Amino acid sequence: MKPVDLKQIARELGLSVTTVSKALNDYPDVSKKTKLRVKNLAIKLNYTPNSFALGLRKQESKTIGVIIPDNVHYFFSRVIKGILEVAEKSNYLVILMQSNEDYELEKKQVDLLIGKGVAGILISLSNKTHDFGHLNKIIDSNIPLILFDKIAKNVNCSKVIIDDRKAAYDAVSYLIKKGYKRIAHFRGDLNPQNSIDRFLGYKKALLDNNIEFDSSLVYLCNNNSDFEDGYNNAKKLLSDHKNNVDAVFTVNDLLAIGAIKYFNDNKIKMPESIAIFGFSNWFMSSVISPSLSTVEQHGFEMGKQSGTLLLHEIYCKHNRVKVEHQRIVIQTELVIRDSC
Amino acid sequence: MKPVDLKQIARELGLSVTTVSKALNDYPDVSKKTKLRVKNLAIKLNYTPNSFALGLRKQESKTIGVIIPDNVHYFFSRVIKGILEVAEKSNYLVILMQSNEDYELEKKQVDLLIGKGVAGILISLSNKTHDFGHLNKIIDSNIPLILFDKIAKNVNCSKVIIDDRKAAYDAVSYLIKKGYKRIAHFRGDLNPQNSIDRFLGYKKALLDNNIEFDSSLVYLCNNNSDFEDGYNNAKKLLSDHKNNVDAVFTVNDLLAIGAIKYFNDNKIKMPESIAIFGFSNWFMSSVISPSLSTVEQHGFEMGKQSGTLLLHEIYCKHNRVKVEHQRIVIQTELVIRDSC
Repeated sequence: MKPVDLKQIARELGLSVTTVSKALNDYPDVSKKTKLRVKNLAIKLNYTPNSFALGLRKQESKTIGVIIPDNVHYFFSRVIKGILEVAEKSNYLVILMQSNEDYELEKKQVDLLIGKGVAGILISLSNKTHDFGHLNKIIDSNIPLILFDKIAKNVNCSKVIIDDRKAAYDAVSYLIKKGYKRIAHFRGDLNPQNSIDRFLGYKKALLDNNIEFDSSLVYLCNNNSDFEDGYNNAKKLLSDHKNNVDAVFTVNDLLAIGAIKYFNDNKIKMPESIAIFGFSNWFMSSVISPSLSTVEQHGFEMGKQSGTLLLHEIYCKHNRVKVEHQRIVIQTELVIRDSC
Repeated sequence: MKPVDLKQIARELGLSVTTVSKALNDYPDVSKKTKLRVKNLAIKLNYTPNSFALGLRKQESKTIGVIIPDNVHYFFSRVIKGILEVAEKSNYLVILMQSNEDYELEKKQVDLLIGKGVAGILISLSNKTHDFGHLNKIIDSNIPLILFDKIAKNVNCSKVIIDDRKAAYDAVSYLIKKGYKRIAHFRGDLNPQNSIDRFLGYKKALLDNNIEFDSSLVYLCNNNSDFEDGYNNAKKLLSDHKNNVDAVFTVNDLLAIGAIKYFNDNKIKMPESIAIFGFSNWFMSSVISPSLSTVEQHGFEMGKQSGTLLLHEIYCKHNRVKVEHQRIVIQTELVIRDSC
């Protein structure tokens, strides 16, 4: 059966197509009475708004959607810059959304992007995302999806990540090689995979070097205020372990910077009394005192590769080429500075 | 005359509407011969692609465009967060673009947004934007436009700004009140209004306090690498003026942080030997040593107010309410820390 269109409604009511369209879209220059007549008939005829044009729009859309947990974050703002650069070159527009680490908001945003008919979607998951139905919905809608940085292993799509476990292992191994033995870890939330992997890398480096894992040296930081978490846990660490701790490996730079602030405020010398190793290489890590040793995560590169991969999968879809899902691992590097 | 639509082309050629659409959009599963037949007839009939749906889409579009000079910038990432929050609440999508301080790119992006039929546009101008034809094109296209932070005074639209001149005047007056007399200024590029206004505020504060303006104390920073500009100009400042300078007011925090790095590296005590005052209150300004006195610019609030004003003007347009252009001034505050 041919779908009902605006013309049919217009014909049956003796109105112009424009008036019908305006009535359905609640324009103020159409009378309430007309709106009611149009809407009643639309319901009766099971009218789907502009379905053919909608289909066209979906096929043609040169727009991609990007959902990140937070834009006020040096790493993610670098990633976005990389995505925008790639999109720009291919004349794609980028709809940016931030989930604010809120799972419900992330779900809603996915629905909005699907409804908008974007050509593809890039997501870095919120820390609170525990269910992946919304991601499978994207896949079921035949919209190319790439997860980057904060991913879910079991979702059937391409992923762009770093090897968090190896990067953490390398950082902690470096500390051990430098002679540090009682190494604390300020870890991230329990949920996201990169927080888990960095913890596991930390643990493995200890065990591989015959250093006993001491769970009392691991501090959970999940108050969404990394700087203050770092500051407060540095205080707690020294109160718990006094002189029986000589280094801290933090799951991100901001925690490390908070800890450095506490140690500076309390005249505790770094790295003499305690060494610090961060993760992510925020710009400010190079300018604080002492400058922070950390893991370079190449956010700009991650953005570029994620964007390029998404455009590739969109191209494949349009040209009926089968997509082989990829798992791209961006190489990390240790950046050694004065804090250890 | 009724506009030509896909159905008419399909009817005349004995094809399905889907095939006609695919042919016009160069889908690979339509033969070259068919594409040629369809395209030739489309040209002959003066067919405009999907014009009615396009019109509808424009009217319905709940998407706004945002162009900023750079997303990897604490202030702008705060602004974006504010815009996204407002848009989110009204179910508007945000297309983000960054001009990378490139005027030609900014022009191209405006064209893309107009072509996309966005409901409204927010722009913070690139430093290189010297001509405003592209902005007038937005206005002529009847698309609501708001300029924020980096604006052009003579463009006929609403603006959301801070009072840069007053903020700079307040900062320099504070330094003078604290006893500093030989105050250098690391100024921004010659072009953008906020750079000019901060310089004028600096100069006026000196003159109002009977301190002679000495142009040799003003250093131009326009290498697009603020941190290094700050570092290098701090070096140059001391080489030029030796002990005959006691404070620096910088046009942004990153320059100040570069200068602090130079002074720290050379064991020059702050504020004893030289005081520093920044502008913008980046997060890192609170965590470096010494912590930096600066001007709080309320980026998040600027984003929220700009977004809200734009949605208001879109609403007015849809409801045929005359728009009175506004000039919203976000209040700034001095944040006094250890650097002065």
